[in-house]
Amino acid sequence: MSNVNTVNETVSLLMNHRSVRQFTDTQVTEEQLNTIISTAQRASTSSNVQAYSVIAITEPELKGKLAAFAGNQAYVEQCSVFLVWCADLHRLKQVTAPHLGDKPSYEDSMENLIVATIDVTLAAQNAAIAAESLGLGIVYIGGIRNQIAEVSQLLGLPELVYPVFGMCIGYPEQENELKPRLPIEAVLHKNGYNKEQSVEQVKAYDMTTKQYMLERTEGKNDTPWSQVMATRLALPHRLHMKKFLESKGFMKK
Amino acid sequence: MSNVNTVNETVSLLMNHRSVRQFTDTQVTEEQLNTIISTAQRASTSSNVQAYSVIAITEPELKGKLAAFAGNQAYVEQCSVFLVWCADLHRLKQVTAPHLGDKPSYEDSMENLIVATIDVTLAAQNAAIAAESLGLGIVYIGGIRNQIAEVSQLLGLPELVYPVFGMCIGYPEQENELKPRLPIEAVLHKNGYNKEQSVEQVKAYDMTTKQYMLERTEGKNDTPWSQVMATRLALPHRLHMKKFLESKGFMKK
Repeated sequence: MSNVNTVNETVSLLMNHRSVRQFTDTQVTEEQLNTIISTAQRASTSSNVQAYSVIAITEPELKGKLAAFAGNQAYVEQCSVFLVWCADLHRLKQVTAPHLGDKPSYEDSMENLIVATIDVTLAAQNAAIAAESLGLGIVYIGGIRNQIAEVSQLLGLPELVYPVFGMCIGYPEQENELKPRLPIEAVLHKNGYNKEQSVEQVKAYDMTTKQYMLERTEGKNDTPWSQVMATRLALPHRLHMKKFLESKGFMKK
Repeated sequence: MSNVNTVNETVSLLMNHRSVRQFTDTQVTEEQLNTIISTAQRASTSSNVQAYSVIAITEPELKGKLAAFAGNQAYVEQCSVFLVWCADLHRLKQVTAPHLGDKPSYEDSMENLIVATIDVTLAAQNAAIAAESLGLGIVYIGGIRNQIAEVSQLLGLPELVYPVFGMCIGYPEQENELKPRLPIEAVLHKNGYNKEQSVEQVKAYDMTTKQYMLERTEGKNDTPWSQVMATRLALPHRLHMKKFLESKGFMKK
Protein backbone atom coordinates (compact mmCIF):
# COMPACT_ATOMS: atom_id res chain seq x y z
CA MET A 1 0.00 0.00 0.00
CA SER A 2 1.32 3.42 -0.92
CA ASN A 3 1.04 6.04 1.78
CA VAL A 4 2.33 8.86 -0.33
CA ASN A 5 -0.86 10.90 -0.37
CA THR A 6 -2.18 10.22 3.10
CA VAL A 7 0.73 10.94 5.44
CA ASN A 8 1.49 14.48 6.48
CA GLU A 9 2.59 16.28 9.63
CA THR A 10 -0.91 16.46 11.10
CA VAL A 11 -1.82 12.84 10.34
CA SER A 12 1.48 11.73 11.94
CA LEU A 13 0.71 13.80 15.01
CA LEU A 14 -2.76 12.25 15.33
CA MET A 15 -1.41 8.72 14.82
CA ASN A 16 1.18 9.24 17.56
CA HIS A 17 -1.07 10.47 20.33
CA ARG A 18 -0.47 8.88 23.71
CA SER A 19 -1.66 10.02 27.11
CA VAL A 20 1.00 11.66 29.27
CA ARG A 21 0.85 11.17 33.04
CA GLN A 22 4.26 12.51 34.09
CA PHE A 23 5.28 16.09 33.51
CA THR A 24 8.45 18.18 33.90
CA ASP A 25 8.47 21.40 35.94
CA THR A 26 8.45 23.61 32.83
CA GLN A 27 5.30 25.68 32.76
CA VAL A 28 2.84 26.20 29.92
CA THR A 29 2.95 29.90 28.92
CA GLU A 30 -0.03 32.23 28.74
CA GLU A 31 0.56 32.50 24.99
CA GLN A 32 0.48 28.72 24.56
CA LEU A 33 -2.74 28.49 26.59
CA ASN A 34 -4.33 31.21 24.46
CA THR A 35 -3.37 29.39 21.27
CA ILE A 36 -4.74 26.12 22.63
CA ILE A 37 -8.08 27.63 23.63
CA SER A 38 -8.31 29.64 20.39
CA THR A 39 -8.02 26.42 18.35
CA ALA A 40 -10.69 24.88 20.61
CA GLN A 41 -13.01 27.75 19.73
CA ARG A 42 -12.59 27.11 15.99
CA ALA A 43 -13.99 23.57 16.27
CA SER A 44 -17.45 22.92 14.84
CA THR A 45 -20.34 23.78 17.15
CA SER A 46 -24.00 22.93 16.66
CA SER A 47 -25.68 26.01 15.03
CA ASN A 48 -22.91 28.14 16.59
CA VAL A 49 -24.30 27.64 20.13
CA GLN A 50 -20.78 27.29 21.59
CA ALA A 51 -22.33 25.56 24.58
CA TYR A 52 -19.20 25.04 26.66
CA SER A 53 -16.81 26.68 29.08
CA VAL A 54 -13.31 25.68 30.10
CA ILE A 55 -11.77 26.46 33.45
CA ALA A 56 -7.99 26.69 33.61
CA ILE A 57 -6.75 25.63 37.02
CA THR A 58 -3.27 26.77 37.99
CA GLU A 59 -3.65 27.45 41.75
CA PRO A 60 -1.81 24.61 43.52
CA GLU A 61 -4.42 24.24 46.27
CA LEU A 62 -7.27 23.91 43.79
CA LYS A 63 -5.30 21.39 41.73
CA GLY A 64 -4.63 19.40 44.87
CA LYS A 65 -8.31 19.25 45.75
CA LEU A 66 -9.28 18.27 42.21
CA ALA A 67 -6.59 15.56 42.17
CA ALA A 68 -8.13 14.12 45.34
CA PHE A 69 -11.68 14.28 43.94
CA ALA A 70 -10.49 12.51 40.78
CA GLY A 71 -9.35 9.49 42.79
CA ASN A 72 -5.92 10.73 43.88
CA GLN A 73 -4.45 11.09 40.43
CA ALA A 74 -1.11 12.80 41.17
CA TYR A 75 -0.68 14.14 37.63
CA VAL A 76 -3.71 16.41 38.08
CA GLU A 77 -1.66 18.21 40.71
CA GLN A 78 1.67 17.86 38.93
CA CYS A 79 0.72 19.16 35.49
CA SER A 80 1.24 22.80 34.61
CA VAL A 81 -2.39 23.59 33.76
CA PHE A 82 -5.43 21.48 34.55
CA LEU A 83 -8.36 22.26 32.29
CA VAL A 84 -11.89 21.45 33.39
CA TRP A 85 -14.07 21.20 30.28
CA CYS A 86 -17.73 21.96 30.99
CA ALA A 87 -20.91 21.58 28.98
CA ASP A 88 -22.50 24.99 29.47
CA LEU A 89 -26.12 25.92 28.74
CA HIS A 90 -26.13 28.48 31.56
CA ARG A 91 -24.55 31.24 29.47
CA LEU A 92 -27.11 30.65 26.72
CA LYS A 93 -29.98 30.76 29.16
CA GLN A 94 -28.71 33.99 30.73
CA VAL A 95 -28.12 35.90 27.51
CA THR A 96 -31.31 34.76 25.78
CA ALA A 97 -33.59 35.51 28.75
CA PRO A 98 -34.05 39.22 27.90
CA HIS A 99 -35.14 38.27 24.35
CA LEU A 100 -37.47 35.49 25.48
CA GLY A 101 -39.49 37.22 28.17
CA ASP A 102 -42.23 34.79 29.22
CA LYS A 103 -41.85 32.45 26.23
CA PRO A 104 -41.04 28.85 27.03
CA SER A 105 -37.55 27.69 26.12
CA TYR A 106 -35.88 24.32 25.83
CA GLU A 107 -32.32 24.64 27.11
CA ASP A 108 -33.18 21.84 29.57
CA SER A 109 -33.96 19.22 26.90
CA MET A 110 -32.10 15.93 26.46
CA GLU A 111 -31.19 17.15 22.97
CA ASN A 112 -29.42 20.20 24.39
CA LEU A 113 -27.53 18.08 26.92
CA ILE A 114 -26.26 16.03 23.97
CA VAL A 115 -25.47 19.18 21.96
CA ALA A 116 -23.47 20.72 24.82
CA THR A 117 -21.61 17.46 25.49
CA ILE A 118 -20.66 17.17 21.81
CA ASP A 119 -19.67 20.86 21.59
CA VAL A 120 -17.32 20.70 24.56
CA THR A 121 -15.74 17.47 23.35
CA LEU A 122 -15.06 18.81 19.84
CA ALA A 123 -13.46 21.89 21.39
CA ALA A 124 -11.38 19.84 23.84
CA GLN A 125 -10.04 17.56 21.13
CA ASN A 126 -8.86 20.55 19.09
CA ALA A 127 -7.12 21.80 22.24
CA ALA A 128 -5.49 18.40 22.80
CA ILE A 129 -4.15 18.30 19.26
CA ALA A 130 -2.93 21.91 19.36
CA ALA A 131 -1.15 21.23 22.66
CA GLU A 132 0.56 18.15 21.25
CA SER A 133 1.59 20.05 18.12
CA LEU A 134 3.35 22.52 20.45
CA GLY A 135 5.35 19.71 22.06
CA LEU A 136 3.13 19.46 25.13
CA GLY A 137 1.48 16.31 26.46
CA ILE A 138 -2.06 15.79 27.67
CA VAL A 139 -4.27 13.25 29.39
CA TYR A 140 -8.07 13.33 29.67
CA ILE A 141 -9.38 12.89 33.22
CA GLY A 142 -12.84 11.29 33.38
CA GLY A 143 -12.15 10.88 37.11
CA ILE A 144 -13.55 14.34 37.82
CA ARG A 145 -16.96 12.70 37.41
CA ASN A 146 -16.21 10.46 40.44
CA GLN A 147 -17.19 13.27 42.78
CA ILE A 148 -18.90 15.49 40.28
CA ALA A 149 -21.02 17.36 42.86
CA GLU A 150 -17.93 18.29 44.90
CA VAL A 151 -16.01 19.37 41.79
CA SER A 152 -18.96 21.50 40.68
CA GLN A 153 -19.22 23.17 44.05
CA LEU A 154 -15.49 23.81 44.31
CA LEU A 155 -15.46 25.58 40.94
CA GLY A 156 -18.76 27.43 41.47
CA LEU A 157 -20.52 25.84 38.51
CA PRO A 158 -24.07 27.20 38.18
CA GLU A 159 -27.25 25.45 36.97
CA LEU A 160 -27.02 23.94 33.48
CA VAL A 161 -23.25 23.53 33.62
CA TYR A 162 -21.52 20.20 34.24
CA PRO A 163 -17.85 19.23 34.22
CA VAL A 164 -17.52 16.64 31.44
CA PHE A 165 -13.83 15.78 31.84
CA GLY A 166 -10.55 17.30 32.90
CA MET A 167 -7.34 17.57 30.89
CA CYS A 168 -3.80 17.75 32.26
CA ILE A 169 -1.39 19.77 30.11
CA GLY A 170 2.37 20.06 30.54
CA TYR A 171 5.73 19.08 29.13
CA PRO A 172 6.00 15.28 28.98
CA GLU A 173 8.49 13.62 31.31
CA GLN A 174 8.22 10.25 29.59
CA GLU A 175 6.99 8.78 26.35
CA ASN A 176 4.44 6.00 26.73
CA GLU A 177 3.92 3.16 24.30
CA LEU A 178 1.08 3.25 21.80
CA LYS A 179 -1.65 0.88 22.96
CA PRO A 180 -3.16 -1.32 20.23
CA ARG A 181 -6.68 -0.35 19.16
CA LEU A 182 -9.51 -2.50 17.79
CA PRO A 183 -9.01 -3.62 14.18
CA ILE A 184 -10.46 -0.97 11.87
CA GLU A 185 -13.08 -3.47 10.66
CA ALA A 186 -14.54 -3.59 14.20
CA VAL A 187 -15.45 0.08 14.19
CA LEU A 188 -15.87 0.89 10.48
CA HIS A 189 -19.08 -0.40 8.90
CA LYS A 190 -20.08 0.02 5.26
CA ASN A 191 -23.58 1.17 4.30
CA GLY A 192 -25.19 -0.33 7.40
CA TYR A 193 -24.37 -1.69 10.85
CA ASN A 194 -22.66 -5.08 10.70
CA LYS A 195 -23.13 -6.79 14.08
CA GLU A 196 -21.31 -9.99 13.20
CA GLN A 197 -18.23 -8.31 11.79
CA SER A 198 -17.88 -5.95 14.72
CA VAL A 199 -18.04 -8.75 17.28
CA GLU A 200 -15.94 -11.15 15.19
CA GLN A 201 -13.07 -8.66 15.01
CA VAL A 202 -12.92 -8.50 18.79
CA LYS A 203 -11.63 -12.09 18.78
CA ALA A 204 -8.54 -10.99 16.87
CA TYR A 205 -8.18 -8.00 19.19
CA ASP A 206 -8.36 -10.24 22.24
CA MET A 207 -5.33 -12.14 20.91
CA THR A 208 -3.48 -8.87 20.25
CA THR A 209 -4.20 -7.42 23.70
CA LYS A 210 -3.36 -10.72 25.44
CA GLN A 211 0.05 -10.69 23.77
CA TYR A 212 0.54 -6.99 24.49
CA MET A 213 -0.22 -7.48 28.20
CA LEU A 214 2.07 -10.53 28.42
CA GLU A 215 4.96 -8.52 26.99
CA ARG A 216 4.32 -5.48 29.18
CA THR A 217 4.01 -7.47 32.42
CA GLU A 218 6.79 -9.96 31.74
CA GLY A 219 4.33 -12.82 31.54
CA LYS A 220 2.33 -11.98 34.68
CA ASN A 221 -0.86 -10.74 33.05
CA ASP A 222 -2.53 -12.02 29.91
CA THR A 223 -6.04 -10.64 30.28
CA PRO A 224 -7.64 -10.05 26.88
CA TRP A 225 -9.54 -6.82 26.20
CA SER A 226 -13.04 -8.31 26.36
CA GLN A 227 -12.34 -9.60 29.85
CA VAL A 228 -10.95 -6.26 31.06
CA MET A 229 -14.10 -4.66 29.68
CA ALA A 230 -16.31 -7.23 31.44
CA THR A 231 -14.70 -6.36 34.77
CA ARG A 232 -15.28 -2.69 34.04
CA LEU A 233 -18.94 -3.11 33.02
CA ALA A 234 -19.65 -5.14 36.15
CA LEU A 235 -18.68 -2.20 38.37
CA PRO A 236 -21.51 0.09 39.51
CA HIS A 237 -19.49 3.03 38.18
CA ARG A 238 -20.64 6.66 38.74
CA LEU A 239 -24.28 5.74 39.12
CA HIS A 240 -24.88 9.23 40.53
CA MET A 241 -24.65 10.80 37.06
CA LYS A 242 -28.33 10.70 36.14
CA LYS A 243 -29.53 12.27 39.38
CA PHE A 244 -26.71 14.77 39.34
CA LEU A 245 -27.50 15.98 35.83
CA GLU A 246 -31.20 16.23 36.68
CA SER A 247 -30.36 18.21 39.82
CA LYS A 248 -28.41 20.67 37.68
CA GLY A 249 -31.43 21.32 35.48
CA PHE A 250 -30.58 19.04 32.55
CA MET A 251 -32.84 16.51 30.80
CA LYS A 252 -36.15 17.88 32.00
CA LYS A 253 -37.67 17.45 28.55
CA MET B 1 2.45 39.60 20.71
CA SER B 2 4.98 37.20 19.27
CA ASN B 3 3.52 34.10 17.67
CA VAL B 4 6.84 32.47 16.93
CA ASN B 5 6.38 29.52 19.24
CA THR B 6 2.69 28.90 18.90
CA VAL B 7 2.02 28.78 15.17
CA ASN B 8 2.71 25.64 13.23
CA GLU B 9 1.08 23.69 10.41
CA THR B 10 -1.39 21.90 12.67
CA VAL B 11 -2.40 25.01 14.62
CA SER B 12 -2.97 26.85 11.32
CA LEU B 13 -5.11 23.99 10.07
CA LEU B 14 -7.23 24.04 13.25
CA MET B 15 -7.60 27.84 13.13
CA ASN B 16 -8.80 27.69 9.53
CA HIS B 17 -11.56 25.11 9.88
CA ARG B 18 -14.77 26.01 8.15
CA SER B 19 -17.71 23.76 7.31
CA VAL B 20 -17.98 22.75 3.67
CA ARG B 21 -21.44 22.30 2.15
CA GLN B 22 -20.58 22.09 -1.54
CA PHE B 23 -18.42 19.37 -2.98
CA THR B 24 -16.81 18.56 -6.33
CA ASP B 25 -17.36 15.21 -8.04
CA THR B 26 -13.91 13.92 -7.10
CA GLN B 27 -14.25 10.89 -4.86
CA VAL B 28 -12.53 10.17 -1.54
CA THR B 29 -10.28 7.12 -2.01
CA GLU B 30 -10.36 3.97 0.08
CA GLU B 31 -6.84 4.79 1.26
CA GLN B 32 -7.89 8.26 2.40
CA LEU B 33 -10.89 6.84 4.26
CA ASN B 34 -8.66 4.29 5.98
CA THR B 35 -6.24 6.99 7.07
CA ILE B 36 -9.11 9.15 8.35
CA ILE B 37 -10.64 6.33 10.39
CA SER B 38 -7.22 5.18 11.64
CA THR B 39 -6.54 8.64 13.08
CA ALA B 40 -10.02 8.55 14.66
CA GLN B 41 -9.07 5.31 16.38
CA ARG B 42 -5.95 6.88 17.93
CA ALA B 43 -8.01 9.50 19.80
CA SER B 44 -8.29 9.15 23.56
CA THR B 45 -11.01 6.78 24.77
CA SER B 46 -12.24 6.33 28.33
CA SER B 47 -10.35 3.31 29.80
CA ASN B 48 -9.88 2.05 26.22
CA VAL B 49 -13.59 1.16 25.88
CA GLN B 50 -13.69 2.44 22.26
CA ALA B 51 -17.45 2.75 22.60
CA TYR B 52 -18.26 3.89 19.07
CA SER B 53 -18.85 2.74 15.52
CA VAL B 54 -18.80 4.68 12.30
CA ILE B 55 -20.83 3.79 9.24
CA ALA B 56 -19.47 4.93 5.88
CA ILE B 57 -22.34 5.56 3.47
CA THR B 58 -21.46 5.57 -0.21
CA GLU B 59 -24.57 3.96 -1.77
CA PRO B 60 -26.45 6.79 -3.52
CA GLU B 61 -29.88 5.53 -2.51
CA LEU B 62 -28.94 5.37 1.16
CA LYS B 63 -27.36 8.81 1.02
CA GLY B 64 -30.54 10.16 -0.56
CA LYS B 65 -32.71 8.73 2.20
CA LEU B 66 -30.39 10.07 4.90
CA ALA B 67 -30.36 13.50 3.25
CA ALA B 68 -34.17 13.53 3.42
CA PHE B 69 -34.22 12.39 7.07
CA ALA B 70 -31.72 15.14 7.92
CA GLY B 71 -34.11 17.82 6.71
CA ASN B 72 -33.36 17.72 2.98
CA GLN B 73 -29.74 18.73 3.25
CA ALA B 74 -28.51 18.25 -0.34
CA TYR B 75 -24.84 18.00 0.65
CA VAL B 76 -25.51 14.73 2.49
CA GLU B 77 -26.33 13.25 -0.90
CA GLN B 78 -23.74 15.20 -2.83
CA CYS B 79 -20.67 14.47 -0.72
CA SER B 80 -18.37 11.58 -1.58
CA VAL B 81 -18.69 9.74 1.74
CA PHE B 82 -21.26 10.35 4.43
CA LEU B 83 -20.11 9.08 7.83
CA VAL B 84 -22.65 8.27 10.52
CA TRP B 85 -20.88 8.41 13.89
CA CYS B 86 -22.56 6.21 16.50
CA ALA B 87 -22.15 5.86 20.25
CA ASP B 88 -21.90 2.08 20.59
CA LEU B 89 -22.27 0.09 23.81
CA HIS B 90 -23.74 -2.86 21.92
CA ARG B 91 -20.37 -4.31 20.92
CA LEU B 92 -19.16 -4.08 24.52
CA LYS B 93 -22.26 -5.81 25.80
CA GLN B 94 -21.96 -8.60 23.25
CA VAL B 95 -18.28 -9.37 23.81
CA THR B 96 -18.39 -9.12 27.60
CA ALA B 97 -21.49 -11.30 27.99
CA PRO B 98 -19.58 -14.63 27.93
CA HIS B 99 -17.29 -13.36 30.73
CA LEU B 100 -20.12 -11.97 32.84
CA GLY B 101 -22.54 -14.89 32.91
CA ASP B 102 -25.32 -13.94 35.33
CA LYS B 103 -23.49 -11.02 36.93
CA PRO B 104 -25.20 -7.63 36.68
CA SER B 105 -23.55 -5.10 34.40
CA TYR B 106 -23.95 -1.39 33.87
CA GLU B 107 -23.62 -0.66 30.17
CA ASP B 108 -27.06 0.98 30.41
CA SER B 109 -26.02 3.66 32.90
CA MET B 110 -26.17 7.41 32.26
CA GLU B 111 -22.42 7.44 32.85
CA ASN B 112 -21.86 5.02 29.98
CA LEU B 113 -24.09 7.05 27.66
CA ILE B 114 -21.86 10.05 28.43
CA VAL B 115 -18.71 7.95 27.96
CA ALA B 116 -19.85 6.64 24.58
CA THR B 117 -20.94 10.12 23.42
CA ILE B 118 -17.54 11.55 24.38
CA ASP B 119 -15.65 8.65 22.79
CA VAL B 120 -17.37 8.97 19.44
CA THR B 121 -16.95 12.75 19.40
CA LEU B 122 -13.21 12.59 20.14
CA ALA B 123 -12.81 10.05 17.34
CA ALA B 124 -14.89 12.09 14.89
CA GLN B 125 -12.92 15.26 15.54
CA ASN B 126 -9.65 13.47 14.79
CA ALA B 127 -11.24 12.25 11.57
CA ALA B 128 -12.36 15.78 10.68
CA ILE B 129 -8.88 17.17 11.22
CA ALA B 130 -7.20 14.35 9.31
CA ALA B 131 -9.62 14.86 6.40
CA GLU B 132 -8.91 18.59 6.29
CA SER B 133 -5.16 17.97 6.43
CA LEU B 134 -5.60 15.85 3.28
CA GLY B 135 -7.28 18.75 1.46
CA LEU B 136 -10.81 17.45 2.00
CA GLY B 137 -13.68 19.40 3.51
CA ILE B 138 -16.23 18.28 6.10
CA VAL B 139 -19.44 19.36 7.75
CA TYR B 140 -21.04 17.84 10.84
CA ILE B 141 -24.72 16.95 10.43
CA GLY B 142 -26.70 17.09 13.66
CA GLY B 143 -29.78 16.86 11.45
CA ILE B 144 -29.65 13.05 11.52
CA ARG B 145 -31.16 13.38 14.99
CA ASN B 146 -34.29 14.99 13.45
CA GLN B 147 -35.61 11.54 12.54
CA ILE B 148 -33.29 9.48 14.67
CA ALA B 149 -35.59 6.45 14.84
CA GLU B 150 -35.87 6.27 11.05
CA VAL B 151 -32.11 6.71 10.60
CA SER B 152 -31.45 3.95 13.15
CA GLN B 153 -33.83 1.59 11.43
CA LEU B 154 -32.45 2.32 7.97
CA LEU B 155 -28.91 1.50 9.11
CA GLY B 156 -29.90 -1.48 11.25
CA LEU B 157 -28.59 -0.04 14.51
CA PRO B 158 -29.11 -2.49 17.38
CA GLU B 159 -29.89 -1.77 21.06
CA LEU B 160 -27.38 0.46 22.84
CA VAL B 161 -26.26 2.16 19.64
CA TYR B 162 -27.38 5.66 18.64
CA PRO B 163 -26.37 7.89 15.73
CA VAL B 164 -24.81 10.98 17.34
CA PHE B 165 -24.12 13.02 14.20
CA GLY B 166 -23.26 12.61 10.56
CA MET B 167 -20.27 14.01 8.68
CA CYS B 168 -20.06 14.83 4.98
CA ILE B 169 -16.61 14.38 3.46
CA GLY B 170 -15.48 15.39 0.00
CA TYR B 171 -13.41 17.83 -2.02
CA PRO B 172 -14.57 21.40 -1.29
CA GLU B 173 -16.27 23.27 -4.12
CA GLN B 174 -16.12 26.59 -2.33
CA GLU B 175 -14.35 28.22 0.57
CA ASN B 176 -16.63 29.69 3.21
CA GLU B 177 -15.79 32.61 5.45
CA LEU B 178 -14.66 32.08 9.02
CA LYS B 179 -17.53 32.96 11.35
CA PRO B 180 -16.55 35.02 14.40
CA ARG B 181 -16.57 33.10 17.70
CA LEU B 182 -17.23 34.31 21.23
CA PRO B 183 -14.36 36.34 22.75
CA ILE B 184 -11.95 33.94 24.46
CA GLU B 185 -12.81 35.50 27.84
CA ALA B 186 -16.41 34.28 27.47
CA VAL B 187 -15.39 30.63 27.41
CA LEU B 188 -12.07 30.60 29.30
CA HIS B 189 -12.38 30.95 33.07
CA LYS B 190 -9.48 31.04 35.53
CA ASN B 191 -9.51 28.93 38.71
CA GLY B 192 -13.31 29.00 38.99
CA TYR B 193 -16.45 29.73 36.98
CA ASN B 194 -16.94 33.44 36.37
CA LYS B 195 -20.63 34.05 35.61
CA GLU B 196 -20.40 37.81 35.17
CA GLN B 197 -17.43 37.74 32.82
CA SER B 198 -18.95 35.06 30.61
CA VAL B 199 -22.23 36.94 30.20
CA GLU B 200 -20.54 40.37 29.91
CA GLN B 201 -18.43 39.18 26.98
CA VAL B 202 -21.55 38.23 25.05
CA LYS B 203 -22.38 41.95 24.78
CA ALA B 204 -19.21 42.53 22.79
CA TYR B 205 -19.96 39.42 20.71
CA ASP B 206 -23.46 40.69 19.96
CA MET B 207 -21.90 43.80 18.43
CA THR B 208 -19.47 41.69 16.39
CA THR B 209 -22.14 39.33 15.07
CA LYS B 210 -24.53 42.20 14.30
CA GLN B 211 -21.83 43.82 12.18
CA TYR B 212 -20.91 40.49 10.56
CA MET B 213 -24.54 39.82 9.60
CA LEU B 214 -25.01 43.34 8.23
CA GLU B 215 -21.98 42.91 5.97
CA ARG B 216 -22.98 39.43 4.81
CA THR B 217 -26.58 40.38 4.01
CA GLU B 218 -25.89 43.80 2.53
CA GLY B 219 -27.68 45.53 5.37
CA LYS B 220 -30.79 43.32 5.42
CA ASN B 221 -30.13 41.40 8.63
CA ASP B 222 -28.52 42.66 11.81
CA THR B 223 -29.63 40.06 14.33
CA PRO B 224 -27.08 39.71 17.15
CA TRP B 225 -26.02 36.26 18.34
CA SER B 226 -27.98 36.28 21.60
CA GLN B 227 -31.19 36.90 19.67
CA VAL B 228 -30.47 34.12 17.16
CA MET B 229 -29.87 31.83 20.12
CA ALA B 230 -33.14 32.94 21.78
CA THR B 231 -35.09 31.99 18.65
CA ARG B 232 -33.31 28.63 18.66
CA LEU B 233 -33.93 27.89 22.36
CA ALA B 234 -37.62 28.75 21.97
CA LEU B 235 -38.08 25.94 19.42
CA PRO B 236 -39.26 22.59 20.79
CA HIS B 237 -36.31 20.98 19.02
CA ARG B 238 -35.87 17.17 18.89
CA LEU B 239 -37.88 16.59 22.04
CA HIS B 240 -38.02 12.90 21.10
CA MET B 241 -34.39 12.35 22.14
CA LYS B 242 -34.98 11.31 25.75
CA LYS B 243 -37.62 8.71 24.92
CA PHE B 244 -35.65 7.49 21.94
CA LEU B 245 -32.48 6.91 23.97
CA GLU B 246 -34.46 5.14 26.68
CA SER B 247 -36.13 2.95 24.06
CA LYS B 248 -32.67 1.92 22.83
CA GLY B 249 -31.66 0.74 26.29
CA PHE B 250 -29.67 3.77 27.43
CA MET B 251 -29.93 5.63 30.77
CA LYS B 252 -31.67 2.90 32.71
CA LYS B 253 -29.45 3.54 35.74
